[in-house]
Amino acid sequence: MKRIGVVDTTFARVDMARYGIDALQAAGTGFRISRATVPGIKDLPVAVRRQFQEGADLCLAFGMPGKAEYDRVCAHEASTGLIFAGVLESKPVVECFVFEDEAASPKELETLARRRAEEHAVNAFHLLFRPQELARRAATGQRQGFADVGAVRPHR
Amino acid sequence: MKRIGVVDTTFARVDMARYGIDALQAAGTGFRISRATVPGIKDLPVAVRRQFQEGADLCLAFGMPGKAEYDRVCAHEASTGLIFAGVLESKPVVECFVFEDEAASPKELETLARRRAEEHAVNAFHLLFRPQELARRAATGQRQGFADVGAVRPHR
Amino acid sequence: MKRIGVVDTTFARVDMARYGIDALQAAGTGFRISRATVPGIKDLPVAVRRQFQEGADLCLAFGMPGKAEYDRVCAHEASTGLIFAGVLESKPVVECFVFEDEAASPKELETLARRRAEEHAVNAFHLLFRPQELARRAATGQRQGFADVGAVRPHR
Amino acid sequence: MKRIGVVDTTFARVDMARYGIDALQAAGTGFRISRATVPGIKDLPVAVRRQFQEGADLCLAFGMPGKAEYDRVCAHEASTGLIFAGVLESKPVVECFVFEDEAASPKELETLARRRAEEHAVNAFHLLFRPQELARRAATGQRQGFADVGAVRPHR
Amino acid sequence: MKRIGVVDTTFARVDMARYGIDALQAAGTGFRISRATVPGIKDLPVAVRRQFQEGADLCLAFGMPGKAEYDRVCAHEASTGLIFAGVLESKPVVECFVFEDEAASPKELETLARRRAEEHAVNAFHLLFRPQELARRAATGQRQGFADVGAVRPHR
Repeated sequence: MKRIGVVDTTFARVDMARYGIDALQAAGTGFRISRATVPGIKDLPVAVRRQFQEGADLCLAFGMPGKAEYDRVCAHEASTGLIFAGVLESKPVVECFVFEDEAASPKELETLARRRAEEHAVNAFHLLFRPQELARRAATGQRQGFADVGAVRPHR
Repeated sequence: MKRIGVVDTTFARVDMARYGIDALQAAGTGFRISRATVPGIKDLPVAVRRQFQEGADLCLAFGMPGKAEYDRVCAHEASTGLIFAGVLESKPVVECFVFEDEAASPKELETLARRRAEEHAVNAFHLLFRPQELARRAATGQRQGFADVGAVRPHR
Repeated sequence: MKRIGVVDTTFARVDMARYGIDALQAAGTGFRISRATVPGIKDLPVAVRRQFQEGADLCLAFGMPGKAEYDRVCAHEASTGLIFAGVLESKPVVECFVFEDEAASPKELETLARRRAEEHAVNAFHLLFRPQELARRAATGQRQGFADVGAVRPHR
Repeated sequence: MKRIGVVDTTFARVDMARYGIDALQAAGTGFRISRATVPGIKDLPVAVRRQFQEGADLCLAFGMPGKAEYDRVCAHEASTGLIFAGVLESKPVVECFVFEDEAASPKELETLARRRAEEHAVNAFHLLFRPQELARRAATGQRQGFADVGAVRPHR
Repeated sequence: MKRIGVVDTTFARVDMARYGIDALQAAGTGFRISRATVPGIKDLPVAVRRQFQEGADLCLAFGMPGKAEYDRVCAHEASTGLIFAGVLESKPVVECFVFEDEAASPKELETLARRRAEEHAVNAFHLLFRPQELARRAATGQRQGFADVGAVRPHR
């Protein structure tokens, strides 16, 4: 039985962790989920490392940075910390961030965040259980939350 | 008995650590506080790690960067260091920074800093003693020092 | 028998890993390849460290950041993580990134990505098996994917 | 007997280390000083770690970045490295940097650098021997090299 | 017998490592040199750590970033990695980078790169064998590759 850590924030405005967990459970079985909520994205790296130390095999980290320039800096610090935590533990951290200004309206934001959360959750499932699914999609221009852009085909 | 490290700076202009400690003590019991003051925000990461090595289970780090562009760089370095210290120790570091130019007047600055310190302190209390309180507020658009923005509700 | 880890992403639009592997195999023998595909470039550092822990002597990391400003930030985070993973393990990580806006058309993008992948793969081969080939080209203005710019000759 | 490492550069234009050492010695006793000079600010993090490994309890790191944009990048890298070294060793690193363009004339630069060096040296002394002096000044708007800005008082 | 690691790139356009080695050998004896060439500056941190693990007491790292904005980002990543490697190993890494756009012509570039390489090599020699030479030049406004700017003298 694998274990997937799901960490999210009280700062976010869309319950991406819930959508992610639903997508994980729709994707298959063989894992249990351990969820933790922290205040903001800068708290995610520590939460992720703690999940790993409590036995998680992979973590999904959900966050929704705000619209200000400073939020971009925080997101950069959080991402750097998530990569650091993952490399230290040698375990995958699937980061799913949606910037509030990626969408033009609350409705669009909700749709984008839900889709991205679901697609990253499926990626997480594949990383743990079906790496061949990722291998099959190598370099095919996959996007999460938006339409895939597709591969650029070799020309002859 | 848990231990909470509270670190702050002589550089800051509002005694956020005092407000934070008052809010911690209003929030509940079961912990003792260990406080240390350092000159500036770049000194916080080492102070935090020392607190952890002396037994702290969580640290609250208060700082107030100035208005210059260079202060933003220092804040970025300090935040990166705080995340690094937290991940190394696998213990939560609740960062509470107020940028001097977030407020238009000294009075506003004082109010903002007090509220943010109090709300981050409550977050710290929840992280240690009542994680279910954070879980309950997952993705509800919580903000510290400003009004919460609230969740974006799913549309049907 | 040496082992070369090849990691790439589903996000990329050109199958650089394939071109890289072909170039490795054309370059010589004495190694086997272990390939892993992850969703995006930020997942590469963990994948690389895992390859090293499973026995890789060198990793080739392929990625294709998009055109947005945010993609540059992600690439920076990924590169920082790749260097961190390499230094931690003391093993070479040959990063091969192509930014989507380096090329004016899909056709150009494909050509650029193929050439850069092939040339970085040859570099990887030399790092492992023929360091004297790199020594011979020291400071000769080598470029990957574009024409070499050449050395600036001493003037007398 | 405590030990204070003082590291500085040949790049700087004002002998801040000398001013710092004088201020340390005026502040009190109970320590000996170990000084090392390196070429530039990027060499400070390694010099600091070496001081710690040779027994220093705290380091003072003096640097004077130049006026170019690139100098700001170097200062950022150096600061990040100093924080990294301090956190790794769990020992305080008091960074004292003066940017050459903080002052309008050589005379001003000299005055600023001397005052900042002296005030950071006193901070270092307090960190090691009189933490209560820092605690007493918590959140009082202390500045090094310029006039203190003072606390913002709570309003009633 | 000390050991000095000299690492450089095939990307650079001027053979700074050669000039550096000549300057080291002119400076004195008591060391042997171990040289490695890697493709680009981002490969230097791993090469440096490997040199240290094979016995180097100090490393000289030569690189020549190109003119594009992206080259500045790569140089920043490389520098951060070099500092990280040096701090991890507690051994000095003398970084000698020349940006291609620091010079207005190939001739100027060659002259600048040669002088900077030579002067950094002498610094490296002093770090290992004559630290008192660096101490004597503390805060005297030394520059590498350009004329020294000199100390700002105290005014009375």
